Amino acid sequence: MSLVVVGSFGIDTVETPYGKVEGVVGGSAIYFSLAASLFTEVRLAGNIGADFPSEPLQTLRSRGADLNGVQTFENQPTFRWSGRYLGDMSEAETLLTELNVLLEPPRIPSAYKNSPFAFLANMCPDTQLATLKELQADMVFADTMNLWIETALPDLRKVLQQVDGLILNETEARALTGEDLLLKAGSALLQMGPKIIVIKKGEHGAILFADGMEFHVPAYPTRLVVDPTGAGDSFAGGFLGSLAKAGKVSPPSLRLAMAMGTVAASCTVEHFSTAGLEAATIEELDGRFLGLREFVDFGTHE
Amino acid sequence: MSLVVVGSFGIDTVETPYGKVEGVVGGSAIYFSLAASLFTEVRLAGNIGADFPSEPLQTLRSRGADLNGVQTFENQPTFRWSGRYLGDMSEAETLLTELNVLLEPPRIPSAYKNSPFAFLANMCPDTQLATLKELQADMVFADTMNLWIETALPDLRKVLQQVDGLILNETEARALTGEDLLLKAGSALLQMGPKIIVIKKGEHGAILFADGMEFHVPAYPTRLVVDPTGAGDSFAGGFLGSLAKAGKVSPPSLRLAMAMGTVAASCTVEHFSTAGLEAATIEELDGRFLGLREFVDFGTHE
Repeated sequence: MSLVVVGSFGIDTVETPYGKVEGVVGGSAIYFSLAASLFTEVRLAGNIGADFPSEPLQTLRSRGADLNGVQTFENQPTFRWSGRYLGDMSEAETLLTELNVLLEPPRIPSAYKNSPFAFLANMCPDTQLATLKELQADMVFADTMNLWIETALPDLRKVLQQVDGLILNETEARALTGEDLLLKAGSALLQMGPKIIVIKKGEHGAILFADGMEFHVPAYPTRLVVDPTGAGDSFAGGFLGSLAKAGKVSPPSLRLAMAMGTVAASCTVEHFSTAGLEAATIEELDGRFLGLREFVDFGTHE
Repeated sequence: MSLVVVGSFGIDTVETPYGKVEGVVGGSAIYFSLAASLFTEVRLAGNIGADFPSEPLQTLRSRGADLNGVQTFENQPTFRWSGRYLGDMSEAETLLTELNVLLEPPRIPSAYKNSPFAFLANMCPDTQLATLKELQADMVFADTMNLWIETALPDLRKVLQQVDGLILNETEARALTGEDLLLKAGSALLQMGPKIIVIKKGEHGAILFADGMEFHVPAYPTRLVVDPTGAGDSFAGGFLGSLAKAGKVSPPSLRLAMAMGTVAASCTVEHFSTAGLEAATIEELDGRFLGLREFVDFGTHE
């Protein structure tokens, strides 16, 4: 089933202990789509400037993605982000943010309305609310960030009342609920509206909370962590792509989706920018899925 | 099969966001043994003063433990530790340490020599080396702490050359190897001597590294975390108790042991001091094992 994503397209400069790359492709919608398009038809919406490189869009087209919602602004530059990761790379230090074309609202083609699955990547809750009015998806997931928890909580609460699922990281989950223990934070988030909560824990994996179900998946055991940028959006893309491919939300499809989000994120972190995801194939993800299952399988006991 | 543990018996004062307890039972050997004795015959060695309470020793006797190696010093007080946990309780702030009877070497009864499994809890590497000479176990695991990594590294390296397994936390693993990424730290530790490495990650679970095998288990999903004191030693007790009960070290017995260590630790953190472990039964642990398996099981996919 088709999957709409509304989010950012960016040009990043990133420094990690493994090196520095300047002016590379980034943005939540790009990472999300490159992962999700390995599973299902992705329909993208968001704004770019004329300076946005064509390669990732070509890759997405070759994977069957619909780019009619990608709006090019000829006279404004693409969103830019610059950040640095130190030590264990668990958190990025943002050095620069230039919103540029992100100041214009995204445009949702009317043909996207019949998509059953949708993802609202991290953006201003006000824009998420406006976008929700444009969509008729049965299953909408959203992301958010600490900035909105601190500055736009009333609107964010309205978003939570209207979406089916929320994917956020552990810092955001703690900030939004005031609970230190992630298991308590997950339960508290379920009370705020969404029926499905996924808390991402970076190198420690992710936990899913749904009615009567909790499920934990560790990060894929890769030894090559070069650049964590986009890992969370790649997780969301693998997760929702897998769910849209399954075509239904059930305990088995949710468990599979958590695993597929995890292996998609592992492809991202092994390279700078989107190189890992652009090179990835569904066979590669399936192979990593087997490795991940082996990593957690209790096995049969004697 | 029987399992020797050499470690500390303590009297603790602990403060957490849930309250404060003074003069309660603690110490690595006590937590370890209360967990391990649910699985197998435990033989304890270590020093206590006349002020050490008799209740936990009675519980251990009722579970078939051998206390002949517990040496009472009539004129010296038991080891004392006082600490405080704040916020998410991921780390204790030590307020006071009085070694007292721990300044005397532990005495290992000669009858303990035929035990096939042994655990050297956290203590000075010099004492661990002396203890290793007294044991003839086929399978010896050790613990350590940052203090010894900083002040007694040459002796600690000798210990690592002589033991079969090492159980340590993530901070210690990073300090001992200089690797930020735990997967790399695990591989580096395997190069230092032990054939089996377990890195404990607190609320994020634990990872096992062995020849050709890596296995991850998350923390048991309890919502009741009152006092983390002794969680790591309870994990080690459940882990080695389960392994000694299996009587052999194999991929299935190691996976089961990781799960049993995890559920034993969950009983500890739900109460102050040793109350959770003293009340625990093997049926309780088996029930939690099923819950933990459900928490990570990828299930069958449609």
